[in-house]
Amino acid sequence: MSTPRLLEIRQGVLSKNDRLAAELRQRFHAAGVFVVNLLSSPGAGKTRLLEETLRRMGTDLRVAALVGDLATDNDALRLARSGAPVRQIQTGDMCHLEAHLVEQHLDGWNLDDLDVLFIENVGNLVCPTGYDLGEAARAVLLSVTEGEDKPLKYPGAFVSADCVVVTKMDLAEAVEFDQRAAEANIASVHPGVPIVYTSARTGAGLDAWMEWLEHHRCSSHR
Amino acid sequence: MSTPRLLEIRQGVLSKNDRLAAELRQRFHAAGVFVVNLLSSPGAGKTRLLEETLRRMGTDLRVAALVGDLATDNDALRLARSGAPVRQIQTGDMCHLEAHLVEQHLDGWNLDDLDVLFIENVGNLVCPTGYDLGEAARAVLLSVTEGEDKPLKYPGAFVSADCVVVTKMDLAEAVEFDQRAAEANIASVHPGVPIVYTSARTGAGLDAWMEWLEHHRCSSHR
Repeated sequence: MSTPRLLEIRQGVLSKNDRLAAELRQRFHAAGVFVVNLLSSPGAGKTRLLEETLRRMGTDLRVAALVGDLATDNDALRLARSGAPVRQIQTGDMCHLEAHLVEQHLDGWNLDDLDVLFIENVGNLVCPTGYDLGEAARAVLLSVTEGEDKPLKYPGAFVSADCVVVTKMDLAEAVEFDQRAAEANIASVHPGVPIVYTSARTGAGLDAWMEWLEHHRCSSHR
Repeated sequence: MSTPRLLEIRQGVLSKNDRLAAELRQRFHAAGVFVVNLLSSPGAGKTRLLEETLRRMGTDLRVAALVGDLATDNDALRLARSGAPVRQIQTGDMCHLEAHLVEQHLDGWNLDDLDVLFIENVGNLVCPTGYDLGEAARAVLLSVTEGEDKPLKYPGAFVSADCVVVTKMDLAEAVEFDQRAAEANIASVHPGVPIVYTSARTGAGLDAWMEWLEHHRCSSHR
């Protein structure tokens, strides 16, 4: 990303991705599927949050998930235990998902049979930011163990978020997490973005997260 | 990174980077500077470990640090408190450091006045992997809060490591960290790589880390 020629090619890939993402968004909307793109650092708890989300949501809605990783299908196996249809996308050495990978991995699924599709991106706070996957909403996770300064250091991800989910709140005391500092940092890069504080382990904040999802799902169908 | 043309350009950037990194490595070697490249996810504790390392090492050796981030100079300010010369490299939207950025930020420093230079890479387990910075050794950090499966999910980083530093061991019990599983996963992608278990908060394992650094510093001058 350091040369003008590389930048030009990168912009080409991005605009091709944007076109495909726009087509996907139309397909999702026509089929009435609410699509959420989950972004975070490695190990911030995307899969764990998604396990709880699929379990809770699965009782009322038809939910599925696509899961991106460089290697392994560990996360797909974990999530499949919820009973929801889940597919792993292995990206090899690519640090993000792209719209064409999402499109490929939808093959054989009837979108009309789904209400909600989660896309768990590759664990990375930089690369996935610029790649639209046709989602209706983007949630960026920040675990309390990462430190309150991450919104300042990775502003792109937090600027693009429709919701910031603070995770692992059960560890907040142990790591001396400064909630006011985190809130101020998030607000300084993205004023007004909703913040939900959660712990998948204790269940704290999961109701608020489910409410945020349900609110956005409903308004996306208007 | 998805089209043959982009791949070709990327390889061109990499080989240009490799040439410059080889030149840097010669300069470092000629000046007797031991250079360590630190890689990890965001928030795995690179800066915290480096604070302790600079403080301990600074009593005997002339140490400096370059610190990469997309934005902010928070880390440089933190590290400068050690009294060591520190410079921040702001990468904008680039998810890794490159050799030319290292070279630029050495400007005005006399390498003959240094014994050890740490380069703290951008927090990212994917992108920095392929970019040689002319370092003599590469340490990859894995915090216990990220989960034991990260070596399997980000194999490239762990394959490239000369040492794996497990961090935040003071939280191991709280997050039910499975040390045997982590060890098995690291060994499966990089058999025989040394693993050091540390807590910058309690000081546990820092002696072993300092010993590993000193051992490699000495052997790099042979």
